[in-house]
Amino acid sequence: MTERQENAIRLGLVGIGKIARDQHLPALASDDCFVLAATASRNATLDQIPGHADITAMLEGGHALDAVSLCTPPDGRHAQALAAIDAGLHVMLEKPPAATLSEIAALAERARARGVTLFTTWHSREAAGVGPARAWLTGKRIDAVRIAWREDIRRWHPGQEWILAPGGFGVFDPGINALSIATAILPDPLLLESAWMDVPEGRASPLAAGLTMRSGGAQVTAAFDFLQTGPQTWDIEVDTDAGMLRLRMGGSILQLPDAPEMQAPDREYARLYARFAELVAAGESDVDIRPIQLVADAFLLAERRMTAPFAF
Amino acid sequence: MTERQENAIRLGLVGIGKIARDQHLPALASDDCFVLAATASRNATLDQIPGHADITAMLEGGHALDAVSLCTPPDGRHAQALAAIDAGLHVMLEKPPAATLSEIAALAERARARGVTLFTTWHSREAAGVGPARAWLTGKRIDAVRIAWREDIRRWHPGQEWILAPGGFGVFDPGINALSIATAILPDPLLLESAWMDVPEGRASPLAAGLTMRSGGAQVTAAFDFLQTGPQTWDIEVDTDAGMLRLRMGGSILQLPDAPEMQAPDREYARLYARFAELVAAGESDVDIRPIQLVADAFLLAERRMTAPFAF
Repeated sequence: MTERQENAIRLGLVGIGKIARDQHLPALASDDCFVLAATASRNATLDQIPGHADITAMLEGGHALDAVSLCTPPDGRHAQALAAIDAGLHVMLEKPPAATLSEIAALAERARARGVTLFTTWHSREAAGVGPARAWLTGKRIDAVRIAWREDIRRWHPGQEWILAPGGFGVFDPGINALSIATAILPDPLLLESAWMDVPEGRASPLAAGLTMRSGGAQVTAAFDFLQTGPQTWDIEVDTDAGMLRLRMGGSILQLPDAPEMQAPDREYARLYARFAELVAAGESDVDIRPIQLVADAFLLAERRMTAPFAF
Repeated sequence: MTERQENAIRLGLVGIGKIARDQHLPALASDDCFVLAATASRNATLDQIPGHADITAMLEGGHALDAVSLCTPPDGRHAQALAAIDAGLHVMLEKPPAATLSEIAALAERARARGVTLFTTWHSREAAGVGPARAWLTGKRIDAVRIAWREDIRRWHPGQEWILAPGGFGVFDPGINALSIATAILPDPLLLESAWMDVPEGRASPLAAGLTMRSGGAQVTAAFDFLQTGPQTWDIEVDTDAGMLRLRMGGSILQLPDAPEMQAPDREYARLYARFAELVAAGESDVDIRPIQLVADAFLLAERRMTAPFAF
């Protein structure tokens, strides 16, 4: 571990799954604004960090925590976040911030009332190309936007039956990342006009979906596909009066007209924690529900088609 | 017409359908805070009131409007409301306020930026029993809430195919009224836990639905049914530590323990316009999305069952 700042934020991490190990722990280890003071997880613990079976035990563990970061599935996140807020702690939420929009609104209200920071993170917005893309688009006329998010569910979510269950979002689980980028780079509100979903027989959530949206004067289309074998696609193309912008590989590669391709190492979670530290220092919250709001709008408006049964 | 106040709000009414004739026009005729200065409707006009084919023509009609009230279907309401806001006018919206949550958020943002009042109305909240119900529940322990909203689609929506089309909300079209009352009378946030929907084969929106929610420590259930023949039910029962509260007939009848039944004439729309006038005078907005947010949450989480085809 690096040397910590004296006023470092004492953080409790809840949920030690793949995303915590792959992303949160490395980001925390290299950020001296944070001290990882405790964890909560039903099954896992970390060497040399006090571990608890659940968040209640962690909050009562005498760790003098300042903040909590939740990497558990969205299903139980509302209750956990509420417990942390009511204990006077700042809270950072993995995406999507909770299982429903009403839960997020209730958390935001409670955090406001308690005077603590609530940060709903959208990690894809921190991909290297997203900030420069937003900056380049500023002041340009946007004519059309095409989102293509096509990946192989069997490769990225092997055996994860919950993703096709009620509330599992289906192909919107990755697709919400595209919507988080689009809402961040487009200057005008992104509004849904129509949608379709292909839901396999016997499942509740879609394997494929298409959205037709608008943003200012531009039509915005999104194609989400969970059955893409071979090359995987996470691309956004924006036609403007100054040529086409292309964000590729989930926002990590930026192509601008007459410019060399921009690419940089993945620092998504390092940037999320840096932003969380800033918000805590400023006494502010950042609760942006636009990506999950668009997903809910899609479920509300979509024409559904039943497709063949799917097995992992 | 009664004599108008000198500083009365000059109102443009958009959409002259059943709800405008049954509710808005009588309410406006007896409220001297308003002058109905113009209308916009594709097909209808009113005697002695300048009429236009659409809102653009009405806004350019030289009527010195202060405000606009929208009674058109939710589908096109966002564009109409945006035109009014951008013309610097205050806007009142029938329920639901727009076709999607993203549209409502975008309107709220624009109204704030333009410094005009936006009022998302929920007429059932103005039913005679709702205010007294909220007051009576204050400070009581709420143990359970049961919502039963059962009506005959063929009687109340004859031939309205759109209500079962994508975005038509199905049985949530009336059900959202129950949710607007529940969110108004319950002191704690109303959060969805699970839901089911019965969608007839070949339709997109449900004829029946069940929600399991929670509010503080209380379980809240809602049963919505669009195939109820015989007696129609629009009831909410609340079990408390001081006995059971019953709101019946859409909130117009209130039954409290050991008290005579309370009933009063329907003044829902009169109260909505009085509130709109107050908001305009105070320079404030009232944008409460909780009822439609719960509907979107239900579409997001629901287990769907396909039922037999339905014909009106």
